[in-house]
Amino acid sequence: MSLGQQAGGMDFPMRVKTYFEQLQSRICSALESVEGSARFGSDAWERPGGGGGLSRVLEEGDVLEKAGVGVSTVFGDLPRTMASRMKTATADFWATGISLVVHPRNPYAPAVHMNYRYFQEGGNDFWFGGGSDLTPNYLYEEDAVHFHSALKRACDSVDGSYYPRFKKACDEYFTIKHRKETRGIGGIFFDDLRGDPEKLFALARAGGDVFLESYLPLVERRNREAWGDRERRWQLLRRGRYVEFNLVYDRGTTFGLETQGRVESILMSLPPHADWRYMDQPRAGTREAALVEVLQHPREWVR
Amino acid sequence: MSLGQQAGGMDFPMRVKTYFEQLQSRICSALESVEGSARFGSDAWERPGGGGGLSRVLEEGDVLEKAGVGVSTVFGDLPRTMASRMKTATADFWATGISLVVHPRNPYAPAVHMNYRYFQEGGNDFWFGGGSDLTPNYLYEEDAVHFHSALKRACDSVDGSYYPRFKKACDEYFTIKHRKETRGIGGIFFDDLRGDPEKLFALARAGGDVFLESYLPLVERRNREAWGDRERRWQLLRRGRYVEFNLVYDRGTTFGLETQGRVESILMSLPPHADWRYMDQPRAGTREAALVEVLQHPREWVR
Repeated sequence: MSLGQQAGGMDFPMRVKTYFEQLQSRICSALESVEGSARFGSDAWERPGGGGGLSRVLEEGDVLEKAGVGVSTVFGDLPRTMASRMKTATADFWATGISLVVHPRNPYAPAVHMNYRYFQEGGNDFWFGGGSDLTPNYLYEEDAVHFHSALKRACDSVDGSYYPRFKKACDEYFTIKHRKETRGIGGIFFDDLRGDPEKLFALARAGGDVFLESYLPLVERRNREAWGDRERRWQLLRRGRYVEFNLVYDRGTTFGLETQGRVESILMSLPPHADWRYMDQPRAGTREAALVEVLQHPREWVR
Repeated sequence: MSLGQQAGGMDFPMRVKTYFEQLQSRICSALESVEGSARFGSDAWERPGGGGGLSRVLEEGDVLEKAGVGVSTVFGDLPRTMASRMKTATADFWATGISLVVHPRNPYAPAVHMNYRYFQEGGNDFWFGGGSDLTPNYLYEEDAVHFHSALKRACDSVDGSYYPRFKKACDEYFTIKHRKETRGIGGIFFDDLRGDPEKLFALARAGGDVFLESYLPLVERRNREAWGDRERRWQLLRRGRYVEFNLVYDRGTTFGLETQGRVESILMSLPPHADWRYMDQPRAGTREAALVEVLQHPREWVR
C-alpha cells in the first residue's frame, strides 16, 4: 500500500507516525530529567515483513528502575491469525504506534503504561486504539484524581462523551480475571475506534500530549518518601500481578508473540524484577489491603 | 458420577488417587531431607463445584528456594470451555492428579517439574497425562544423561516405545515459541493417553516412583558449587523465561486460570523471583551461551 492516500488527506498516516516519533523523543527527554543517573538507549530495528521501529529502554536508574518507550511503523501482509480474527479477506495493512511503560524504583511511586496506535487495512478501513493507565502499589487518592483528571481534560478537549466511556473500558480491559482484580487504578482505554480521522488523531494527540503532566508529578512527589523491605516486597509481588496480566490477557502482548513480533520490544513492558509468594494476602487494615480493595472495586475518580 | 465403576475394575480411580496422595507425601519428606531449614506447609482446599486438594508449599529454604507439590481430585460438571474443546456433549468428569515444581536456590542446581494426572469423562472415556522435565540454568551433560536415563528406565519398564515418543513430545510441548527455545532440557511428556488402564497407571507410577532418583542427586551434587552475582542474575533471567512459558503456553496453567481453578495452587509453579532485562543475551563462548545453544537445539541424551 502506498502511504498518503488514506483517511483524511494526502499525508495523514505520515502525520500520525511523525507525531508518535516526536512524542517518544519528548517523553524520553522528560523522563531522563526526573531520573538521576541512567539514560535511554536507542535500538532501531527492522521488521522482516516490512517496516521497523525504535525501542528506547532505560534500566537500573536511581528513580526509574525500568522505562521503555517504543515506536514502530509496520506494514505488509496481514498475519493470517489476525486476518481471520478480523473476519477480513484483505491482506495488507499499515500501522504505527507508540507504547510506553515506566516502573519506578520507589514502591510508593506508581507504574504507568501508555499506548496509542493507528491501523489501516487494505486501503478501506482504519482505526485508532490506545489509552493510558496507572498501576500504584499504594493508593494515594490525590494521585488517582490527578491522573484521571488530566486524562479527562485531554478527552474532553475532543469529545465530552469520551472519558466516561474510555474510563469504564479501561477498568474492564485491565482486569486480571483469575485474580478478580484490576491491574491498577485505571485510566482510559479505547480500541477499534472509527470515525472522523482528524478527530481521532486529535484524541491520540491529546492523550499523548497530556502524558507527562498526568504522570511525572506523581513520580516526583512519591519518590521523596522513604521505603524499606516491606514496601519493596509488596512492590515485587504487585509486579508479579503485572506480569500475569501482560502475559495472560494483554492483547498487544499476546498478539505480538503469536505473530512473531520483535520479542524484546513486546516484552519491554515487563518489570525488571517480579515475585510470587504462595497465599501472600495483605492483612486487613493495612495500606496494602487498601490497594487491593480498590483493585477489586474500581472507583470513579473524577466526575 | 459414582467412583469405582470405571476403567479397569471396582476401585481404579481411587487407587490412582491414593497413589498420587502417597507419592506427594513421600516426595515432600524426601525434599525436606535435602533442604536445610524450611518445611512444607499444608493447605487443604475444597473446590466449590466438587472435590478439592492438598497444596504443599515450601518457601525460602536454604537449598530449595521454592517447592510446591499439589494433589487434587475434582469432579462435577465439565466446564463449558473444556467440553467444547473436547468436542463432547457429556457434562460430567472426575479427575485426579499430582503436580510438582522445585526451584532450588543454587543457580547451578536445576529446577524440575513433574505432573501425572488421570481424567475420566461421562463414564465412557478416560485418559492419563503427565511427564517430568528438567530446567537447568547451566548445562551439565552428565546431569541431563542422569535425568533422561532414569525416565527412560521408568518408561521402558512399561513399554519400550514410550521413552522415544514422550521425549520428543516433551521437547515440542515445552517450547517457548516466541523465544525459539525450549524451557529446559526436556524429559518426557504425554497427554490424552488412552488404552489399557492398568498399563497406563503403571506408566504414571513408574514416572512418579522414579522422580526422587531422577532429580535429588542433581540438587545434592550442584548445591555444593559456589555461586555469585553473575550466576544469580542468569538464574533470575532464566526464571523469567519459565514464567513466560507457564503463563503463555502451559495448558494446565491457562486452562486452570480460564476455568476459575484455585489460583494459588495453579500459580504455585511460578518461581519466587524472576527478572527481565532488555536484550540481555549471553556472550558467545560462555557457559550461559552453551545452555541457550542446547535449548535452541534439543539433543538426544540417551539411546
